[in-house]
Parts: sequence; structure tokens; C-alpha cells
Amino acid sequence: MATQKKLKMGMVGGGPGAFIGAIHRNAALMDGLIELTAGAFSGNPEKSKQAGEDLMLDPSRVYSSYDEMISKELALPESERIDIISIVTPNNVHFDPAKKALENGFHVVLDKPMTLNYDEAKELYKIIKKTDKLFCLTHTYTGYPMIKQMKQMIADGAIGEVRKVYVEYPQGWLHKLLEYENKQAEWRTDPARNGKAGCFGDIGTHAFNLAEYVAGIKVAKICADLDIKVDGRPIDDDGAVLMRFENNASGILTASQIDAGCENNLKIRVFGEKAGLEWQQEDNNTLRLRWPDKPDEIYRAGTGYLGSLANENIRTPAGHPEGYIEAFANIYRNFARCIYALRKGEEPKPEWWDFPGAEDGIRGMAFIENVLKSSASDKKWTPFEVEY
Amino acid sequence: MATQKKLKMGMVGGGPGAFIGAIHRNAALMDGLIELTAGAFSGNPEKSKQAGEDLMLDPSRVYSSYDEMISKELALPESERIDIISIVTPNNVHFDPAKKALENGFHVVLDKPMTLNYDEAKELYKIIKKTDKLFCLTHTYTGYPMIKQMKQMIADGAIGEVRKVYVEYPQGWLHKLLEYENKQAEWRTDPARNGKAGCFGDIGTHAFNLAEYVAGIKVAKICADLDIKVDGRPIDDDGAVLMRFENNASGILTASQIDAGCENNLKIRVFGEKAGLEWQQEDNNTLRLRWPDKPDEIYRAGTGYLGSLANENIRTPAGHPEGYIEAFANIYRNFARCIYALRKGEEPKPEWWDFPGAEDGIRGMAFIENVLKSSASDKKWTPFEVEY
Amino acid sequence: MATQKKLKMGMVGGGPGAFIGAIHRNAALMDGLIELTAGAFSGNPEKSKQAGEDLMLDPSRVYSSYDEMISKELALPESERIDIISIVTPNNVHFDPAKKALENGFHVVLDKPMTLNYDEAKELYKIIKKTDKLFCLTHTYTGYPMIKQMKQMIADGAIGEVRKVYVEYPQGWLHKLLEYENKQAEWRTDPARNGKAGCFGDIGTHAFNLAEYVAGIKVAKICADLDIKVDGRPIDDDGAVLMRFENNASGILTASQIDAGCENNLKIRVFGEKAGLEWQQEDNNTLRLRWPDKPDEIYRAGTGYLGSLANENIRTPAGHPEGYIEAFANIYRNFARCIYALRKGEEPKPEWWDFPGAEDGIRGMAFIENVLKSSASDKKWTPFEVEY
Amino acid sequence: MATQKKLKMGMVGGGPGAFIGAIHRNAALMDGLIELTAGAFSGNPEKSKQAGEDLMLDPSRVYSSYDEMISKELALPESERIDIISIVTPNNVHFDPAKKALENGFHVVLDKPMTLNYDEAKELYKIIKKTDKLFCLTHTYTGYPMIKQMKQMIADGAIGEVRKVYVEYPQGWLHKLLEYENKQAEWRTDPARNGKAGCFGDIGTHAFNLAEYVAGIKVAKICADLDIKVDGRPIDDDGAVLMRFENNASGILTASQIDAGCENNLKIRVFGEKAGLEWQQEDNNTLRLRWPDKPDEIYRAGTGYLGSLANENIRTPAGHPEGYIEAFANIYRNFARCIYALRKGEEPKPEWWDFPGAEDGIRGMAFIENVLKSSASDKKWTPFEVEY
Repeated sequence: MATQKKLKMGMVGGGPGAFIGAIHRNAALMDGLIELTAGAFSGNPEKSKQAGEDLMLDPSRVYSSYDEMISKELALPESERIDIISIVTPNNVHFDPAKKALENGFHVVLDKPMTLNYDEAKELYKIIKKTDKLFCLTHTYTGYPMIKQMKQMIADGAIGEVRKVYVEYPQGWLHKLLEYENKQAEWRTDPARNGKAGCFGDIGTHAFNLAEYVAGIKVAKICADLDIKVDGRPIDDDGAVLMRFENNASGILTASQIDAGCENNLKIRVFGEKAGLEWQQEDNNTLRLRWPDKPDEIYRAGTGYLGSLANENIRTPAGHPEGYIEAFANIYRNFARCIYALRKGEEPKPEWWDFPGAEDGIRGMAFIENVLKSSASDKKWTPFEVEY
Repeated sequence: MATQKKLKMGMVGGGPGAFIGAIHRNAALMDGLIELTAGAFSGNPEKSKQAGEDLMLDPSRVYSSYDEMISKELALPESERIDIISIVTPNNVHFDPAKKALENGFHVVLDKPMTLNYDEAKELYKIIKKTDKLFCLTHTYTGYPMIKQMKQMIADGAIGEVRKVYVEYPQGWLHKLLEYENKQAEWRTDPARNGKAGCFGDIGTHAFNLAEYVAGIKVAKICADLDIKVDGRPIDDDGAVLMRFENNASGILTASQIDAGCENNLKIRVFGEKAGLEWQQEDNNTLRLRWPDKPDEIYRAGTGYLGSLANENIRTPAGHPEGYIEAFANIYRNFARCIYALRKGEEPKPEWWDFPGAEDGIRGMAFIENVLKSSASDKKWTPFEVEY
Repeated sequence: MATQKKLKMGMVGGGPGAFIGAIHRNAALMDGLIELTAGAFSGNPEKSKQAGEDLMLDPSRVYSSYDEMISKELALPESERIDIISIVTPNNVHFDPAKKALENGFHVVLDKPMTLNYDEAKELYKIIKKTDKLFCLTHTYTGYPMIKQMKQMIADGAIGEVRKVYVEYPQGWLHKLLEYENKQAEWRTDPARNGKAGCFGDIGTHAFNLAEYVAGIKVAKICADLDIKVDGRPIDDDGAVLMRFENNASGILTASQIDAGCENNLKIRVFGEKAGLEWQQEDNNTLRLRWPDKPDEIYRAGTGYLGSLANENIRTPAGHPEGYIEAFANIYRNFARCIYALRKGEEPKPEWWDFPGAEDGIRGMAFIENVLKSSASDKKWTPFEVEY
Repeated sequence: MATQKKLKMGMVGGGPGAFIGAIHRNAALMDGLIELTAGAFSGNPEKSKQAGEDLMLDPSRVYSSYDEMISKELALPESERIDIISIVTPNNVHFDPAKKALENGFHVVLDKPMTLNYDEAKELYKIIKKTDKLFCLTHTYTGYPMIKQMKQMIADGAIGEVRKVYVEYPQGWLHKLLEYENKQAEWRTDPARNGKAGCFGDIGTHAFNLAEYVAGIKVAKICADLDIKVDGRPIDDDGAVLMRFENNASGILTASQIDAGCENNLKIRVFGEKAGLEWQQEDNNTLRLRWPDKPDEIYRAGTGYLGSLANENIRTPAGHPEGYIEAFANIYRNFARCIYALRKGEEPKPEWWDFPGAEDGIRGMAFIENVLKSSASDKKWTPFEVEY
């Protein structure tokens, strides 16, 4: 029968106590394009089973490991088998399941950063380039409609050539030593599970990704000053990076987890020869276009005057605030739309292809590498090096 | 086997071109507690079929009318049958499907306002009171976590006895005659499908419901001035209502669809003997507590210091903006949680029971009745009359 | 010698403990067009003397009463004599000094409201119309540059014909009984010194004046609901007024002194057929132009794209916030500029004549009269009656 | 006779076309403590004379040069002679008049930066240290009441030890080459009149001064990246500086004149071990105290709960916005209050002494020196060196 069927997803990680797994599920389910069919929610079989029960999955589709999930799903008829594997584990369990999933014919959604370290990233990048499966890295913030509008306006020349990029990501939740009380804090400050960068691996990479995505230019050299502000913590919890882009535009990137009282107000401002654009997560449905000689303009999500990139990433008319989960859902929705289109032999719209992937991943890992190198160096500038 | 199964939902309305049906689906699906199983999406069988195909439903569960849906679903084994009927049609198709759904043993989610007119509302109210099925009316704005926090703080005495309520709902989308271009505008300004109030039926009722919900007091008398600002429109598109509550608190309610350039920034402020509280939809994750003699306090969604009512209605930590769809989803989630609990023979938490229902519905319809009466009267005050 | 000399001002009231007198002095002095030369700062001769000393005035120009000030100043040679009398006393001491000052050849600046009661206002209005001296009533809020821009844009048709005016003036300082602790509260809630309206005499009149000034249309009928929210207070401390303007535009005016935690955030929004304009005192250098179908525009004080009315009322480039004292100073500056121009036999610019005067005064007093009448009436509408 | 007399001020610079001179006059006059008595408003005698006439000064007190002003004023009896010389010329005419004024017994108010270059600054610093006359440098932004509150709260330990300082000063007025059209742009981008730093001399020094003033800690080392973004401009128009303070706190300072569309929104955020504080000029009457585990608090100017430093620098109750001119006036008022107190043989309050002076001046000039040195260096860190 001709009827399209929903995409089936299996999840790796996201069991009890996890934060991001639940968000991935909200995001994947919201639009009715994907259903959660299977999962290896924890390395602990009891916990995985419990999570499967809580999520009302068929117990036969709940596994104790991603290896088991991959092998048993492959044994099912194709029409029942999962299509997508979503990986939401700590960073040390990104590379292996992603590699195996892709190599066994599953589309992959992977939480950022791409891998535990740069070597893994380079290898995974190669695997992604070889496969015909789709790979998506959830740099959530690129899913906001007004971020997409900002990107499109800059690409279309609305502000002229880019001269300046300010991006800041201030958090305060690690302003004191929480590592012994809080599961999130524990793994995110443990180099063995998180990688060698702390704050800059977790949120610095988001800021970097957002800057390059929005401004449409690549970073060429950096000057970083990372620090550990809380005694007893093994990895960076705060830092700032001066940047120069390939076109010589200047950038300032700050990220912190010790800005006490700050929540999560990622903010980006880009100034060009003619005008400037500003966006911040706390007011995510608004984009301000600053003009030097006429009134600033307030672009709003859900209005009729936005470009195609924003329009493909919104669900409600202006004034019905969408937010973080919808931004996340936009990434899943675009990913799913591409799969559906390809399945039907159709060309996905360019707006749907606009989800973060392999290049974002490898550049993010290179960012971590280069930032740590620069922060340890006496020299002002460190070239931004990346192989892919 | 003991495993819980997802609640199955059938939808009435919400076919191509509809606005609110898609939002209901996002909201119902997001949390993985409900799945969309069936639908009578349009009175036009072709359109209903098409909608079912777009939504990837089993074609055998896509119906040409709600009557057909009810009878055919009843013929299915209970384990396959839908549990919930969600009604998202224009107001003239609220009463009949809701009545039949309840009388045939389905839980009902109904878009507001309750019915086309007050007589239908009184009859439906009686039906709801008799049934053991759950009834939910989607007064979305009561689903916002910071609205729930506001309600709880007022109930707990944070601002002292309430003296003043300001509620305003400014929209501008009908600032000119759109009725011949826009499907939404068409039925919402047609008394036969929308009911005899225009703006006050559509959004005035939301504002009224929110005021009573948040302030925790009932309106006792009103003085309304409704108007038609756009020539050629048959029903009100703008108005203001002075109110006095049972405890003599004063209220000012304004609603408009002709405030050109306004989107949907529903705003409520409540002042008590000791302090004031303010919330607005454009910054829905923030609640401001105003103090006369110390710094105002900014309560934020997702933080650790909120009350149980807010805490049960949030998915992400502070700084990850949730919005309108999540507010909607909170209503569906609480509704579903109650059904699950009752199914298991457990008592639902009081926070879950906090979704709008029959009383909100009948009072909303009485509000329309009383406002129209007051607006037509030469007397200043019209008592707020309601039978239930 | 041809050199122009600064205008000399004498003040009535404004002694120790007064609030508004000091502001009048800041405002009058700031621009170097006026100097404070004389004063009858208090009915108590010792207090007046002390005030004169604190202000470093020549003791021979410090008087025990305005009668003394008028007679002794008249005895001085014209080149030494004061030009302007500024009256900043409680409302029961407005009429008599204003009358005498005008009749004796002084220009008058009078704090609002015009007089203690409507009868006095009608008489003073006649006196003003007969004299060739200038009369200014300090409805401060009309001095803000972005209020002037708003008025000019509306007059120029930027939003089309006006349909709606929202004006609100929420204060909270009288949310409890302060009358026995606070000098301001004492006289402002005493009908013998303040007049028979409390909140509506003090700030309701400001809101009314602002609405008519900005919207450029006159109120035709009103429906008021005033109340006393704090037990033991003799006059209104809270209220709301529905309005219809001459062109049938609708208005909602609220004013309160019991909105606990509110400071002084006077706010006005005007919607026309095509667009809307919003301003609020807390962000007084910004004016938002709302469009239904393109991005809203943010007009800012001190920019190069404003109209002549704003441009004549600003001192600094954009981004250097001016505020309340500058708004006050704009009224004094325009008043002084007119006097200088007339002295030189020149025609003052129309932008300078744009300070509040006799008509604002008589309409404000009529507003009090009509609001009290409406609030006491069972009928919905009371015509807005005023004689002048 | 015992009566106090107003302080008399003579101005150097501030003739036709100047921006800052008029602001100095507004600020000096507003509070009635100072009168403008004399001036050498321009090096061009005709222009100086014209300015004197416009300002309605006695023509005998209008001079063609500051040398003339100093010598002729000294020839007057002390009771008639000016007390204060206010210098508002371009930077190349700061040192000489300041030196001569102090050496001839006048109190001095000097616009920032202190001098054209660091050598002059060191010499002037020594002169100031030797004289018994008062010296004030108008780092305006330290005059805002909520900046003073911020400083006092940090000094009192409200946020714990300081870990992070963000300060940014984005302007856009030089986003294109204006140098041939605009008098301000002309001298401010001419090294001979402005000094060798452009943006960093003009506004970078303000940001630096504010950071040290508010945080109460000194910068120890810096890493600067300055740039010229507009072709054809001889000096920096944009830059960023990473900083470390003496206690190892991290700082990020950005200043730009090419951020197209930005006005003047100087912003500072300071984070300590326990909490954070934020202020920005666009909302200058608000200070936000961020807490990690309870609601943020909004401190507002003019309220009853502020500290002594804010309270001595405000004129109106909460909700009556004061702004830039009042901040400027606070500096003049504190300066004047100190002079009055000393004249009367009284000890000025510590809050009055809190105006910027010699140390701010020399550190500001050292900042320029060090920033240029760092920006030209290949090394990451340049120690912050200053002699005084």
C-alpha cells in the first residue's frame, strides 16, 4: 500500500536522570514525523528496561546496549526496523555508537560535541563522508527560526560585509563545586567522559558553531584565555576568545559556567558595513536589525515578511512564542523531511538540508583543540587549524 | 502483560488550512503520552482522507464524520479503540461531537469557547457533570508554568488580598476587512459558525478565564463597551470591560483584534494589599513580583525555587525557553496523567487536575452573554449571571 | 546695550520638604535661559527665609508671601524685576497667586492641576485669555521628545485615523495609609488642599491630558469607576474610565496609587487604521511604531530622522538618555524661548508654543468634574462637558 | 554678610558646534550650585564673543583665550572672580589650560581623557598632587546612581569576591568615513588633536574607568586586538581587550565606533563567587542582581532601599527617569559640594568625594598606552604599567 509510514527511531542513552534525552524525545515526537520505537537507554540493563517501560515501548525493543540494539534491529524485517538512531550519551559514548549505526545502515542523530576527542572526530567525519546515510549533530541553537532569518539576511547582504561578531554564552550553574551532588555536573567536568575541555567543550562549541553559521564566514585565527574559576575543578569553567575571520572580521566569543545567576542566554550580534543584527535566546522570537540612520526594525517569528529559511522552521503565527524545544524539533523535522523526500525519490528543499552535520562536528572539535592550544600559548594568535 | 499503553486519540476537525488542529497535535504528541490514531478531519471526506494520509494514519481509522468515527471506533476491541476525542472545529461544531463523545464513553478535549451559545453550554455542562469521562477545555494560557506560579503565589497570600486585576489581550490581525481572504477570519467573524460575539468570544473569553484562574476570585458585575471598528464586519472586533469581583476588587479587561501591529501579547497584572504580580505572553517564562519597599523579584521558569504547580508543568531547566506549544502540551499532559492515574486506580496529583474544564466552559459562555448584554445596556453595571 | 539678559524667576512654594519645587528649579535652570531671583517659598516666613538662604538668593528677594513678592518686585526697576512667577504650591494655593501674578504683569508657570476646583479654573481661564502674559501649566509628560514625536506622527497621518487610545498611570505609593507619615501623602489626600479628586486629580489628569495631546482628538463621553481601596482614606485612590472620543475612537484610561510596587510608569498606546504607536515613561527615549505587515520600527530620541517637534526638545545625541527633568526643562525652555522671541519682536517657532496652557488646564479640571460625576452615576455614559 | 554665594565658573572651549560643552553647562547649572560667569569658548575671538552673547554673559567676562581669562580674572577682586575653570576642548588643549588653571588657584573640571598623551598626564598628575585646588575629570558614567549602587554593593560583599568583569561600549556613528562631514568625527580621528588612540582614547577609556571603578579592583595585564575597520581612517575604530585583574579575575572589554546602528549603550556586568550585577546605560535607572538559587532582584533608582552612594546622587523618586545629564550633573554637584564644605571648613561627606580625578586620569592614559602596546605585540599578555 502506498501510504507513507512514520520514521522509527531507536535511542542510545537518555535513561533516568539524564537531561538531554527527554528533550530529544519531545523534539522528535512533536511533529508526528518520527516515533520512538526502540532504545538502549542505559548501560545498566535494569535502568534501560525501566526507561523503556516508562516510555511505554514494546519491551522486545528495549535493549541493554547499542550493540544489541543494532544487531537485533537488523534481524527484523526492514518495514519494522528502526530507521534512525539517536545518540544522547555523554561524550565518551558518541563515537562508537555513531560509527556502528552508520556502518550498519541507520541514519544518525548525535548530540554535540561530535566525539570525545579530535582523533575520533576525524575518523567519524570520514565515515560520514562515505556513507549514504544522513548524519545530524544537534547544535540546537541553529534551529531557531530567527537565527535562520539572521543567517539568511546576512547571506543576502542585508548588513553588508561582516566586520564584527560578538557571541556570548553565559551560564552560572557551575559557579560553585557541584560535582559531587549533580549528575550533569559530574560527567560534564570529568575529562574522561566529557573530553579535555569543560565549559568550552559543552557550550563554547555551541557559541562557535552559531557564530560561523550565522555570519557565514570561517574563523581563521584565535587568541584564547581559559580559566578554572572554581577551586578543585579539573577543567575550564570560563573563558574568552578573540577571533579573526577569513575576511579579517573581528570576533569576541565568551563562554562561562561560573557567571553566577546567569541561566542560558546565548546571544549573538553581527555588524556589517551597513547595519547590525542582534538575537538572544531569552527573546528568541525577535531579531533586531539596527540601522545607523533610520529606525531599527524588529523582525518577529511567525510573521508574513520572513524569508524561506525562517518560514520552514515555524509552527505558529506571530505572538505564539515557540522556544528551545521547537528549535530542537526543527532540527529533527528537517532531518526527517530530508529522509522522507529521499525515500520518495524527491529532492529535499534546501531549507530542509539546513541542519548541522559532519562539518559542524569536525570544526567544533577543532575549535576545542585550537582553543586549548591557544590558551596554553604565550603567543597572541593561534591559527585555526582543521583537517577534513 | 502489564505494560501501560499510550493513550489513543481521535481528532474532529483540524484538516487542511486549519490553524489550531496542528497545534493540538504538536501538544498531544510532544510528551509521548498520547498517540494520534484516528480522525474525522473535515466534513469533506476527500479532505479528511487527505489529512489522514498526510498524518500517516492507518486509512481505516480516517473517517468522514465524527458520527462515523464514534460508531466505528466503538466497534473495535477496547484495546484498539481510541480513548480520547479531541475536537478542534469551529464553534458551531463543538456541542454535538462533545456530547456524543462523552455519551459514548470517550474522554474529550474541546477547543474553546465551549459551544456556539449559552444554551448549548448549559446542556453540555450537565452532560459533563453526569459522565465519568474527563473533559478538558483548552484555555491554553492557563497552561503556562509562570501563570501557574502566579496563581499559586496569589492563593498562598504572597500579595495579600487581591484589589486589582488588569488583563489585556491586544491583537491586530483583523484591523482591516480580511474576511474574504483568510479562512480564519472568515469563520471567526461569522456569527453562524463563531457565535454572536466576535473578538470577545475568541479572545475576550481567554482573558476572562485567565483573570479568574490567576486571581482566584470570581467576577460579580461588569460594565462593557464593545464596538465594531472595521466597517462591514457583523460582530465586535474590539472592546473593554470594567469589572468588580466578589470581594469588590476592581478589574479592567480589554480585548481587541484591531490594534494594528499587535500580535498576541496577552498580559495580566494582579495587585494585592502587599505586592503585585505581572506576566505577559511575550516573555512567558518570567513572572515579576513587584514590592513597594524592596527590589522587585524576577521569578523564572525552570528554576529550583518555584512551587509545585509550576514544577509539574515544565520540561527544561531555566533559560531554555518553553512557549505556547508547551503550554498547550501541559494541558494535554495533565489531562493524560489524570487518565493514566485513574486507570491504574491511583489518585492523580492535585497539580494534574489543574486543567480547564466544565466550569471554565460555562463561565466563559456566560461571560459572552453578560458582556453582550452589558454592552447593549444604558446602565453602568450588569450583574455577572451564570447558571450551573 | 543690546545684550539679552536672562529671564528672572520668582517661585511661590517649593520650600523645605516639598518635592516638585526642586524639580521646577532643576528644570528652569538647566538650560541657562532662566535664573532664580526671588521666592516666597513658604507661608512660614522662617521657612521661606531658610529656603532662600539654601538657594543662595539675595535675602532682599526672599519673601513671606506671594502678595509681598508681587508688591515688592513691582517696586523694583523693570530691569531688575522678576519676569516669571512659578507656582508650585498645593492645589488650594494655585488660583490666587496665578491670578495676581498675571494681573500684575508677570508670566506664570503653574503646577498642575490648574486649580482647587472647576469654578476657580473657569475664572482663571478667563483671566489668562485676557492677559498678554504667557501662562504655562506643567503637564510634564508632554515635554518628552518621543511624546512629541508620537503626537507629530499621528497628526501627520502615520497610523491613519485614530481608533483606540490606551493610557495607564499606575503608582503604588499609597497602597497603604501613609497620610500620617508623609507630607506628600498628607496634602494629596486632603480634599481641602488637593481638591475633591485624589488619584484622579493628581495623576488621572496627567493621563487624560497626555491622551488628548498625543492622539489629537477630544474626549466626548466617559464611563468612570473610581474607588477607595485603602480604608480610612477620604478620596479616590484608584479608578478606570472608558472613553469615546469625538470621532468615536475608544479609550481606556486607568490611574491608580494603590498598585503596590508600581513606580510611575505612565504608558500610552494609540492605534489607528494602519498602525500603532507605543510609549512608556520607563523607556522614555523609545517610541515603537507597530506595523501589521512589516517589522515594527523603533524610533529613538536624539537620532537624525525625527520630526521638528522632537528635535526642538532634545539636548544630546541618541543613546545619551534624557529623562523626566529634561522633559520638565523642555516645558520651561519652550516657555522661555517664546518670551525671548516676543521680547525681540520675533514670532516664536510653532514648536516652542507647544507647551501646555489654559486649555489643558480647564479641560483637566473638567475631567475631574466629569469623572466624579460619572463615577457616582448609574448611567453608563456621561457626556464630557467643559465650558471655555 | 554670612550668605553663601554661588560658585562661579569659567569655561574653556564649548563654543558653536561643540557637543560636550553644552552638556557641561546643563550639568553645572541644573542644581543651582554653580553659575556660568566667564568663558574662553573658542580660539577664534569672534566665535568666543558670539558664544558669550548666546549664553547671555557679561561681555567683559568673555575672553579670546584661556590665558587671557586666567590673567584678567586674577585681576578681579576675589569675590567676583571665577572659582572653577571647566575645560571642554579637544584633547590637545587639555594639559596646558589645566596646568595653568591649577597653578593660578582655580579649581578645575576637565573633560576626559586627561591629556593628549601619557607624558602630559604624568606631569599634570604631579601638578594636581601638589595643588590644594580640586581636580575633577568627567568620566560621566561613574555619576549614574545605579553605577554607584553597584560599586557600593560590590564593595560591601554582595556578590562575593569578583571573578569576572564584562564591559562593552558599542557605538556605530563612525561605521563609515564621516571625517570630512562632521566636526566631532574630524577631531576625534585626528591623532594630533585626539591623541594616538581613536576609539580606545574616546570610549575605551570610559569602559576601562567604569570597570575599575565598579569592580573595585585594578587591571594587572591585558591582551588587546585593535583594528581599523574603515578604510582611510588613521587610528583605531574598534577593538577588544582581554584582561586579568590583580586578584586574577578575568575581564573582557570591547569598544567600537563601527558597530553600525549602535548608539551608546555602555554595559557592565560583574560576577562574583555568589551572585552577579548588571547595568546598562539604556536602562540606567535599573540594576539587576542575579542570584543562582533565588529570584533575581531589580534595584531601581530613587527607591528607599539604596545605599548612601546612590542616595546622594539622585533628585527624584523612583519612576521619574534621570539620565545622562543628571549623571554629569552628579559629578559637578559632588565637586561643588566638596568646595562649599571646604570653604565652610567642614569635612565633605565621603559620598561627595566620589568624583573621578587624578588617579582616574593617569590610569586612563596608561590604559591607552598599554592597549596600543599590547595590540602591536605578538605576545599574549602585556603587563598593565602605570607610574604615579
